[in-house]
Amino acid sequence: MSADFPRPDTRYRFHVSYGETDCMGVAYYGEYLHWFERARSQLIRERGLSYAEVEARGLYLPVREASVRYRRPARYEQELFVRVGVSEWGRASVTFAYEVWGPPEGTVLIATGATQHACTSLQGKPVPTPEWLKDLFRAP
Amino acid sequence: MSADFPRPDTRYRFHVSYGETDCMGVAYYGEYLHWFERARSQLIRERGLSYAEVEARGLYLPVREASVRYRRPARYEQELFVRVGVSEWGRASVTFAYEVWGPPEGTVLIATGATQHACTSLQGKPVPTPEWLKDLFRAP
Amino acid sequence: MSADFPRPDTRYRFHVSYGETDCMGVAYYGEYLHWFERARSQLIRERGLSYAEVEARGLYLPVREASVRYRRPARYEQELFVRVGVSEWGRASVTFAYEVWGPPEGTVLIATGATQHACTSLQGKPVPTPEWLKDLFRAP
Amino acid sequence: MSADFPRPDTRYRFHVSYGETDCMGVAYYGEYLHWFERARSQLIRERGLSYAEVEARGLYLPVREASVRYRRPARYEQELFVRVGVSEWGRASVTFAYEVWGPPEGTVLIATGATQHACTSLQGKPVPTPEWLKDLFRAP
Repeated sequence: MSADFPRPDTRYRFHVSYGETDCMGVAYYGEYLHWFERARSQLIRERGLSYAEVEARGLYLPVREASVRYRRPARYEQELFVRVGVSEWGRASVTFAYEVWGPPEGTVLIATGATQHACTSLQGKPVPTPEWLKDLFRAP
Repeated sequence: MSADFPRPDTRYRFHVSYGETDCMGVAYYGEYLHWFERARSQLIRERGLSYAEVEARGLYLPVREASVRYRRPARYEQELFVRVGVSEWGRASVTFAYEVWGPPEGTVLIATGATQHACTSLQGKPVPTPEWLKDLFRAP
Repeated sequence: MSADFPRPDTRYRFHVSYGETDCMGVAYYGEYLHWFERARSQLIRERGLSYAEVEARGLYLPVREASVRYRRPARYEQELFVRVGVSEWGRASVTFAYEVWGPPEGTVLIATGATQHACTSLQGKPVPTPEWLKDLFRAP
Repeated sequence: MSADFPRPDTRYRFHVSYGETDCMGVAYYGEYLHWFERARSQLIRERGLSYAEVEARGLYLPVREASVRYRRPARYEQELFVRVGVSEWGRASVTFAYEVWGPPEGTVLIATGATQHACTSLQGKPVPTPEWLKDLFRAP
């Protein structure tokens, strides 16, 4: 487990589904972005808001950049977890970091990644990162 | 080719992608509903409107029922086509029929299916099937 | 809750993700087949085997038919559960039944569905439904 | 159009489907990796081989890294194309570069990206980049 991973964080646990695998027998590379999003939503929810409520406040967080480093394949039925936290706050953006861990017992690093999100209005205009959003992620 | 397939129809052609396959080495069963939708959109577009324009007129066509009969597996890189047409008009609904054909030369029936759509307002209230929608599908 | 739903059953719980929604603001109709599959895998796993182990025994369960009846839309972040059980055993097939329930508290029926699976060898040849598979689903 | 984009290249054209959009009304960020893969497959196919044949020769190209820079949203029904070419050859790897262009007339840059692939055996062992693979991409 990476000791310097950003806090607060959360761990989104799931089994790799059949529909997420491809004919090489492993999880398809595009599915990781879905996993990242589910972990991100869980993190925001655990901080006391939901992303739906974030949008209801007029704040949108469209993805500007996404990257994934695939280290080990993940297979059908394996139990994985995605660890996620905020790694950087920009003036009008926020960056999340991700680690995907797999069996045995979540000790094998499957992948790492990051997504950078702009802070925008519904119309897509950049807005300064709100303090209430940053406050959400202040520990504990 | 089914002689009694509804007209007008269209054929949506594509190659099975890697991401659409699963670890059994064949196209995942959920992907067929995506293929049906792309074929349906192409049909509406070819009739002179787009589904985006249908919605811009205040008409929504949410799916009420979907069914697929899987006859032969489809594999990565195979060139398939989906044939689609309107099989039935209801008072406040429309039903599309589908056939998926594969190699060699689109002579093998891969799957058949149907989707029934309600005609609704943006708020989801049922509305009578508009005449202009039916007119779209009158041959030629 | 349907009183006559087949037993043993299980309930697969999850939140609707952003990537599962479409521009109508609701869960896309093709995603339900993914949810059904995850519920099915969980059911088999809870009965003491995993579908990966079923395949390791040389038994494959490709989908022959799938159908969904969409009753209410499901939205981003809603907590849903899929109830699944075996509704019918054929000579060389098995049918699963599904119900999708949503908020508040899983009291609203979102969708129902069914999938029929052939029992086949790796090569796709039909094989009689194995007794050990039926035994898995004998209560308790 | 980027003048220094690697050659030979190809352009994979398609319409954004309903199932690829999300409740923000735009194409979901994970779909871009599917589009990249379809463009990549088309490029290899146009060079005279298919990726299925590449695998039949015992060469696998699992993705090691993927990145996307999202510049403009893409919407339902828009006609897009993905331009793809090989941007770099490593000793046991190959990197593809991508540009996604949208309306009007494919003049607006929607996204850019890259995927780096290892060259491996079926068992996942690294193998030197085969000369026949490089030859495929020598112009014209």
